Amino acid sequence: MQGNLNNHSLEMAHHLDEQDELAHFRDEFVIEDPSTLYLDGNSLGRLPRRTVAVLQQSIHHEWGDRLIRSWNEGWFGLPRRLGAKIARLVGTTPEDIVVSDATSVNLFKLATAALRLRPGRTKIISDVFNFPSDLYILQGVIDLLGNRHHLELIPSADGIHIRIEDVQAAIDQDTALVCLTHVAFKSAFMYNMAQVTEIAHQAGALMLWDLSHSAGAVPVDLGGCEADLALGCSYKYLNGGPGAPAFLYVRPDLQPIINSPMWGWFGDQRPFSFELDYVSAQDISRFLVGTPPVLSMRAIEPGLDLILEAGMDRLRLKSIRQTEFLISLARQRLFSLGFSLGSPSETSQRGSHVSLRHAEGYRICRAMIEADPPAMRVIPDFRTPDNIRLGITPLYTNYREIYLAVERIQEIIENREYTQFPLERQAVT
Amino acid sequence: MQGNLNNHSLEMAHHLDEQDELAHFRDEFVIEDPSTLYLDGNSLGRLPRRTVAVLQQSIHHEWGDRLIRSWNEGWFGLPRRLGAKIARLVGTTPEDIVVSDATSVNLFKLATAALRLRPGRTKIISDVFNFPSDLYILQGVIDLLGNRHHLELIPSADGIHIRIEDVQAAIDQDTALVCLTHVAFKSAFMYNMAQVTEIAHQAGALMLWDLSHSAGAVPVDLGGCEADLALGCSYKYLNGGPGAPAFLYVRPDLQPIINSPMWGWFGDQRPFSFELDYVSAQDISRFLVGTPPVLSMRAIEPGLDLILEAGMDRLRLKSIRQTEFLISLARQRLFSLGFSLGSPSETSQRGSHVSLRHAEGYRICRAMIEADPPAMRVIPDFRTPDNIRLGITPLYTNYREIYLAVERIQEIIENREYTQFPLERQAVT
Repeated sequence: MQGNLNNHSLEMAHHLDEQDELAHFRDEFVIEDPSTLYLDGNSLGRLPRRTVAVLQQSIHHEWGDRLIRSWNEGWFGLPRRLGAKIARLVGTTPEDIVVSDATSVNLFKLATAALRLRPGRTKIISDVFNFPSDLYILQGVIDLLGNRHHLELIPSADGIHIRIEDVQAAIDQDTALVCLTHVAFKSAFMYNMAQVTEIAHQAGALMLWDLSHSAGAVPVDLGGCEADLALGCSYKYLNGGPGAPAFLYVRPDLQPIINSPMWGWFGDQRPFSFELDYVSAQDISRFLVGTPPVLSMRAIEPGLDLILEAGMDRLRLKSIRQTEFLISLARQRLFSLGFSLGSPSETSQRGSHVSLRHAEGYRICRAMIEADPPAMRVIPDFRTPDNIRLGITPLYTNYREIYLAVERIQEIIENREYTQFPLERQAVT
Repeated sequence: MQGNLNNHSLEMAHHLDEQDELAHFRDEFVIEDPSTLYLDGNSLGRLPRRTVAVLQQSIHHEWGDRLIRSWNEGWFGLPRRLGAKIARLVGTTPEDIVVSDATSVNLFKLATAALRLRPGRTKIISDVFNFPSDLYILQGVIDLLGNRHHLELIPSADGIHIRIEDVQAAIDQDTALVCLTHVAFKSAFMYNMAQVTEIAHQAGALMLWDLSHSAGAVPVDLGGCEADLALGCSYKYLNGGPGAPAFLYVRPDLQPIINSPMWGWFGDQRPFSFELDYVSAQDISRFLVGTPPVLSMRAIEPGLDLILEAGMDRLRLKSIRQTEFLISLARQRLFSLGFSLGSPSETSQRGSHVSLRHAEGYRICRAMIEADPPAMRVIPDFRTPDNIRLGITPLYTNYREIYLAVERIQEIIENREYTQFPLERQAVT
């Protein structure tokens, strides 16, 4: 199948790539198999070349040679040093973020701490778009604290957006905590953080944002919107490596009065005094717990540097152009084949991926991933019941890939290639 | 200074190394600087050569090339696969251990879960030898659960041992949980696990063992002593790499009834169903939480394989011989210079390190670490107020190193080299 010469031809894609001032950042990543189109940076970001060098240094020199001395030669500072760089991506000051533990562990710490700051209030508000993993943690916290709270989920009227009036209606004077994911993992719907945070604050509730699909993908201004708490993973748009530890944020004025449920030695004021009684640090360090997984921590920094070099504003601009390009191609070639848009069409309400819905979405997804050469392989991911997510990471995604991916999906449908796969589902991440 | 020809000469050390059937395992580790004697494997184990190869594979192939597909190609199975290998080192079945999160996070999960299994009981028993990091976590759990419990520490009569009669006296019908570290980090005192566990059970309390200084260092029989709960780190004697995730154990019959406070998606029965309500797994997986730090997880396995190949019984035998050799040398050369033994002299009550106490311990330790060539550098660690810990890892520690380390300490004292260092302490890990 060849591209034609209309507005959205392969030539057009090449032209857009040539015009792209961020195009050279693609060379900063390991891309060994050019016949695979990777559109899943929203699940696991690619490997930066600089990270390979950092990991070699960390394995051979830091662990292999310097051994225990490396703790004093840089490892101890990692949670704060990485936090300071992430702070620049999410609109806050370097002192207010640490990197530590898994996203779910951090949510447990922050949500438990938040509920204890609002005694007497019994409601936790989230939405039907939140990560199930976040909802599970909240359900566990409620159980742990004796089932004195309940979790209420803001509905979605159309399966794509959450209306601000539904947010407003859910939050009241009994609400202790509003816990939302800024960019929804399925539809890519993006909240207006300032507006929602203000609604939470007007009711006296604390506002906790999960930025896992935001950090490195869309501009975030935690300081400007006066959010109380935030967290996010580092392995999606931040390209920090599989399961790399997550970050967490606490508003500066809350840091001295909030009480982490996990009194870890990294959060003590004098971790090397070996005193038998815990004395909590009074800053963000109080949310550190135990010895961090150094290799996975060391892998995070080069990806952050790349985003800082490219600049969030330029990345967001390219992301918008690329998601628009993708949606436009999909309208032109796929909507007549049973596809519909599962993401907001408004750019101001959309993150950096696009969901396309199709009744045969699961099997189409498998055909995309498992194609035999010479067909292009396309790696998206699938989210039940019918969403194929196509992630745009403007640091390395180019227009050519987007074009070829849509062309390939069209081919799969037209040739009914997906029918060779069984209907039952396997784990697809 | 030259070795002489008495029983503990350098020639004797060489002879012992030649006789050592485990000597070849030293070649399995990266040892680039032979002028540094590393006696701190009890804080951070050395880098196995095979781990370098595994990490290259994980970085380049799994992350760099296979990307998200690697989750289905092995990453998801890591917590259980690693747990199954650790199970063979601590005397239990492969299904009962997972690797997940930091040691402190795992202690939080297990201790909180344990207290909820013993409602109405208000005492937690630990001892003055436990890691402060463990005591801090317990203090935080007590605070979180509304200060209805209190922590009581079993004293040590001599600063080196804990007497069984003091254990017996502390545990009563009001005790919910006994939480002890099997081998004490400072003195290396080792409990009789079966005896203590039986005392806890006779009082109806749950028994939780921290095996951080035991796993890979001394034989452990969790199944035989019917311990309820256990955990341990993987970066000391297991050589899993800096901050590598920890393991945790729950006795099989408790797994279906124990409730982790952290309801993580990795502990759900159907992690890819994306259902909004948590349904806990009924096995050890229920203590998994979020996405694990893959690079740090991948680094763990080769070190476990080496220990399994060497065999815990043979490793323990060599460890006993080496700690005896070290103590004997110290008696001969150091005790007249102000040193005393800070560890049990009975091998059955001692783990795999030896603490030597000296009023100038801190500055002697600095002189050992920071020596200028041609003096040998020795890396021990210091534990307040006066303990120099010398760790024996029989997989790679040889008799020559032990001999030269003691000789070097003698030299530092005799030449008063330590007096060039300031008295105030810096963080020494």
